Amino acid sequence: MAANGHIPSEQWAMVVEKTGGPCVYKKIPVAKPGPDEVLINIKYSGVCHTDLHAMMGDWPLATKMPLVGGHEGAGVIVAVGELVTDLKPGDLAGLKWLNGSCMSCGYCRQADEPLCGEPLLSGYTVDGTFQQYAIGKAAHVARIPQGTDLQAVAPVLCAGITVYKGLKESGICPGQTIAIVGAGGGLGSLALQYAKAMGIHAIAIDGGAEKGQLCKESGAVAYVDFMSSKNLVQEVKNATSDGLGPHAVLLLAVSEKPFQQATEYVRARGTVVCIGLPANAFLKASVFDTVTRMINIKGSYVGNRQDTAEAIDFFSRGLINAPFKVIGLSKLNEVYEMMHKGQIAGRYVVDTSQ
Amino acid sequence: MAANGHIPSEQWAMVVEKTGGPCVYKKIPVAKPGPDEVLINIKYSGVCHTDLHAMMGDWPLATKMPLVGGHEGAGVIVAVGELVTDLKPGDLAGLKWLNGSCMSCGYCRQADEPLCGEPLLSGYTVDGTFQQYAIGKAAHVARIPQGTDLQAVAPVLCAGITVYKGLKESGICPGQTIAIVGAGGGLGSLALQYAKAMGIHAIAIDGGAEKGQLCKESGAVAYVDFMSSKNLVQEVKNATSDGLGPHAVLLLAVSEKPFQQATEYVRARGTVVCIGLPANAFLKASVFDTVTRMINIKGSYVGNRQDTAEAIDFFSRGLINAPFKVIGLSKLNEVYEMMHKGQIAGRYVVDTSQ
Amino acid sequence: MAANGHIPSEQWAMVVEKTGGPCVYKKIPVAKPGPDEVLINIKYSGVCHTDLHAMMGDWPLATKMPLVGGHEGAGVIVAVGELVTDLKPGDLAGLKWLNGSCMSCGYCRQADEPLCGEPLLSGYTVDGTFQQYAIGKAAHVARIPQGTDLQAVAPVLCAGITVYKGLKESGICPGQTIAIVGAGGGLGSLALQYAKAMGIHAIAIDGGAEKGQLCKESGAVAYVDFMSSKNLVQEVKNATSDGLGPHAVLLLAVSEKPFQQATEYVRARGTVVCIGLPANAFLKASVFDTVTRMINIKGSYVGNRQDTAEAIDFFSRGLINAPFKVIGLSKLNEVYEMMHKGQIAGRYVVDTSQ
Amino acid sequence: MAANGHIPSEQWAMVVEKTGGPCVYKKIPVAKPGPDEVLINIKYSGVCHTDLHAMMGDWPLATKMPLVGGHEGAGVIVAVGELVTDLKPGDLAGLKWLNGSCMSCGYCRQADEPLCGEPLLSGYTVDGTFQQYAIGKAAHVARIPQGTDLQAVAPVLCAGITVYKGLKESGICPGQTIAIVGAGGGLGSLALQYAKAMGIHAIAIDGGAEKGQLCKESGAVAYVDFMSSKNLVQEVKNATSDGLGPHAVLLLAVSEKPFQQATEYVRARGTVVCIGLPANAFLKASVFDTVTRMINIKGSYVGNRQDTAEAIDFFSRGLINAPFKVIGLSKLNEVYEMMHKGQIAGRYVVDTSQ
Repeated sequence: MAANGHIPSEQWAMVVEKTGGPCVYKKIPVAKPGPDEVLINIKYSGVCHTDLHAMMGDWPLATKMPLVGGHEGAGVIVAVGELVTDLKPGDLAGLKWLNGSCMSCGYCRQADEPLCGEPLLSGYTVDGTFQQYAIGKAAHVARIPQGTDLQAVAPVLCAGITVYKGLKESGICPGQTIAIVGAGGGLGSLALQYAKAMGIHAIAIDGGAEKGQLCKESGAVAYVDFMSSKNLVQEVKNATSDGLGPHAVLLLAVSEKPFQQATEYVRARGTVVCIGLPANAFLKASVFDTVTRMINIKGSYVGNRQDTAEAIDFFSRGLINAPFKVIGLSKLNEVYEMMHKGQIAGRYVVDTSQ
Repeated sequence: MAANGHIPSEQWAMVVEKTGGPCVYKKIPVAKPGPDEVLINIKYSGVCHTDLHAMMGDWPLATKMPLVGGHEGAGVIVAVGELVTDLKPGDLAGLKWLNGSCMSCGYCRQADEPLCGEPLLSGYTVDGTFQQYAIGKAAHVARIPQGTDLQAVAPVLCAGITVYKGLKESGICPGQTIAIVGAGGGLGSLALQYAKAMGIHAIAIDGGAEKGQLCKESGAVAYVDFMSSKNLVQEVKNATSDGLGPHAVLLLAVSEKPFQQATEYVRARGTVVCIGLPANAFLKASVFDTVTRMINIKGSYVGNRQDTAEAIDFFSRGLINAPFKVIGLSKLNEVYEMMHKGQIAGRYVVDTSQ
Repeated sequence: MAANGHIPSEQWAMVVEKTGGPCVYKKIPVAKPGPDEVLINIKYSGVCHTDLHAMMGDWPLATKMPLVGGHEGAGVIVAVGELVTDLKPGDLAGLKWLNGSCMSCGYCRQADEPLCGEPLLSGYTVDGTFQQYAIGKAAHVARIPQGTDLQAVAPVLCAGITVYKGLKESGICPGQTIAIVGAGGGLGSLALQYAKAMGIHAIAIDGGAEKGQLCKESGAVAYVDFMSSKNLVQEVKNATSDGLGPHAVLLLAVSEKPFQQATEYVRARGTVVCIGLPANAFLKASVFDTVTRMINIKGSYVGNRQDTAEAIDFFSRGLINAPFKVIGLSKLNEVYEMMHKGQIAGRYVVDTSQ
Repeated sequence: MAANGHIPSEQWAMVVEKTGGPCVYKKIPVAKPGPDEVLINIKYSGVCHTDLHAMMGDWPLATKMPLVGGHEGAGVIVAVGELVTDLKPGDLAGLKWLNGSCMSCGYCRQADEPLCGEPLLSGYTVDGTFQQYAIGKAAHVARIPQGTDLQAVAPVLCAGITVYKGLKESGICPGQTIAIVGAGGGLGSLALQYAKAMGIHAIAIDGGAEKGQLCKESGAVAYVDFMSSKNLVQEVKNATSDGLGPHAVLLLAVSEKPFQQATEYVRARGTVVCIGLPANAFLKASVFDTVTRMINIKGSYVGNRQDTAEAIDFFSRGLINAPFKVIGLSKLNEVYEMMHKGQIAGRYVVDTSQ
């Protein structure tokens, strides 16, 4: 193991001690990396709805307990295992949702490691980024260029990668049009910026004039307000130059109605990509329409390692500016409370030094 | 217009005179082809469920009336319009579901002419193949090699093309495994044969031992009997060599239960292709599962002109042998009656000379 | 045939009366469109190297003679044949290189109509756009939105479509890097603009500081000057963020040296696309390198009808601004002379009214 | 490290002690696997031309020295490192050309690990399979199903994977036609068998009646004999049903003439895949033809880990039967001599117990 300077034996962390929460701010030991792992001094970590799900235990997938949550953390590598050759102490790196995978199964072999049957999930099945020193599998940690603003890149490591992956999965090409449902939220504004940077024309769909303003600023070519629209399906179609509807739809907040509308306004041969994960929700679509219009409905999960590198490269070129607010790690419960009440616009990022 | 020998002014046809049927066997005039059309002396025509739907008017799409149904007919070209250069009287040709399209819209420009917004549909919006002389747009009629058995090729022109298209749309590669739901029916046995000829391993799913026997003969590597299976999802997964489930599923008879099962047993990143068109049916799938397993659900309609040529080429090489029975055109109502009662195994082909 | 207002029986045209030229400015009859054709009152036409090749007869493909050249002309439809339903007199339209094709062969069926074995080539095997009234097959004429600046769009109809097609054929994705060889020329500046609009980072390669300035203005992220570079291969690699070289290369002026360099600096798994057509040139590449680095070398010809629609859509959104100069049709020989001497920067557009 | 039964400290191996050879049959120590490695008791190993190149040092890539060659060996795992969880002593496994890679670079991240910039190459940069106990990176060793005939599977591990990869890289689809140049050799007969199993029609090209017989037995639909053919280009085209030429070409023995012929007879939009690696050979093709016919020329190297699994699966299903002869490991120099003289038909497999 190669290490850099002094690594403390103890550190501050937010620990979920039992399912249902809350988190407790306390000192815990610093872990040591195995042969194929690195230890990262996490500086900043974004807070995601998934972290709240993990604490509350309301997803059909068990968490480790006690648990240090968090899965979009950026920091500095302080130690690397003996097999690690392309990373060294001092390099910047990020931890993302997929902390590790088997690297040998059919999915890992084909760059679909998020589908590996034995994944290590940061802040879920292994401890995550709501601590000062976190472990990641070297093959999986995000490589972050020297000089990167670690606060700003943190939300890219989950939210950014996820929407970028969704855009890729949609199969959309530069010059085509995508509708983004939930475009005014945190994921949405990132999706709009990635779409623009990829030469894709985005129709933003959300509710209210304020969100409309935000969407336009993030690069949307049109805004459809579901709160005031009298015929949302027709309005979305009209926002495309030939009136046939968008080539793809990105559903950032899947619930039954927006999903069914999406299959109606997407153009024939178009693709509807589901990303959001509301508990117990179902997709429902007419067979006749799906068949005769050859509609494609697909789910997109998180990005793989290459998607991660690409999503960060867009950020490094200055094309992505996600709005975020910084707060001390010790105040994480306050963020969860706001999240629970639906009061958050943009992303909260915790500073592990406070 | 170039014509060959004597073309009569009248002919025998089965005519639907009002929605709800029945067909009437009577003499009607022979049409003349326009500049971009051909006139085909139909020898044989397959009978498809769609023909019954057209007569009964129970699809959400209006038919022409009075109507000559039929859309999988094979015969000999007897006249061609002035703009037609690559077909001539004496050539064999077939009429399929898509009789013509605008050839200029975004779909026609990209070889997705079945999605053209202004299609001519044989036996539905234009007169079809249940007559002795039928008109087709030259660009769309199926080219059939000289020497082909016109009885045997007829069912390929709709059923064959449709399942072949579905296999292509599934994105499956040689060496991978597909589950075919409804494999023991007419479409199913064609699908099994095309799959085998394409190097794809097919798991047949249907009910009863007799159908199981038929599926094995048509090339299935495994048969799962939904009537006797205690855990169909697990059994289908077990029939794949790594136990992860098939790479794709072809749903030839979509109804809610088989569809939901398909999304459960298809492997992560797999594709479920819907082909069947039950009235008023809906797809329904868990969002959580669709997203985290990155499942792809898509509808496949009929093949385009290139799919047609390819599907016929497989037939011409002797790789496809669809079971069929021949009956006189004048007895079409009897076929509809058997179809209505669900008494048909394989395909009926009508002989227009009787 | 539906016609609009007065169509004269005679018109001005530049006619090549024998191979080798020159063109003669003279009055010739106006043609009448067939059932599947339109007659366009050409307002402006770009002048392309191919037009000079056609006049000189130095390509291995015979021209019609006498010949009206020109294949990137924009104007107004004045008459349509009886089968034409989606175009009408008064619509704007353009003629491009591919004037017509059989619409039935394997290439036409699969949207690769530029590869049709029986093509009609504007200004080559059929009369082109260096006249006031030109004929085009309705299915092939470019649809131009009302209100378009016909002078500015003319060069898009050949040069624009060609480079856009090349970018698509390269398989490059938004966020990746392409090297464009000959980036400072007329095709090059269009290629740089399309690349930028598609979210692709372009490294411009050409000679001299002036061209470098032009390339930067057209959107290049880097410029490599082959006249001053000491190690062009290394410099191009260095211009990519990871130093591995560009993902693709667009060769707008293929000659042996730039081609070999391209196969050296393109990254492993990268694609080299050849577009330029120097007489008698050959590609030459090391087998060992091509195999072990899995390099892909491909030729890209002109765009199909869909590429045409897409390339025009980028223009209509204001993303493409090709520099051009307007001159009277009667002065076409002067343009050819400049072209022959290599004195043209940007594109010349002839005004058919002068 | 988990180990199984007794692992000796010494073993028999064929060792290249200096570039130029020969191999020496001698006892050397058995290596110990690192945390991410396995130790395989090699039972059989195929002998490939590459092994001769490695001994002779005539490729532009340095070998380790002294060197144990060999890179298509099959055997039984006897020990695994501490990080290895999905393999255990007793499992069957194979070593292939790519022994290991960094698993982190852009190529490894995207399942193109054969293009990794820091590869470990069996029998070239690390010791290979011409010994009784060989080391492999766990993530890279080929998984071989229990019960497999280890003699017969050995040639699949390099020759089989390589041709299978080439077929995939050609982009060819079931029902299309490929020409295989050098079809009568060891790689060729495997390529013919894989093609057939994938639903692809293969035209075999080679010299002499005996090879023609062999090709037909391996599944070729046609045989073109370059020794007796008067117009090879035309004959290959004639062997396709529409006369336009094959959709793809697999060049197993690249030299200038066959390569140029391939670009002539491949159909427009077709792909020519180079696999063979003759020293100092060059590709050469007409720019005009490559561009206007949109020909694609690409190199295909060895398969990745997924290709390996797939190629073995075809073998396990009984679809691949490569002819081979078994000889004692100690007689390897005799094989090299025959190889040098071009006297080998099919593959030699060495038995490490002799």
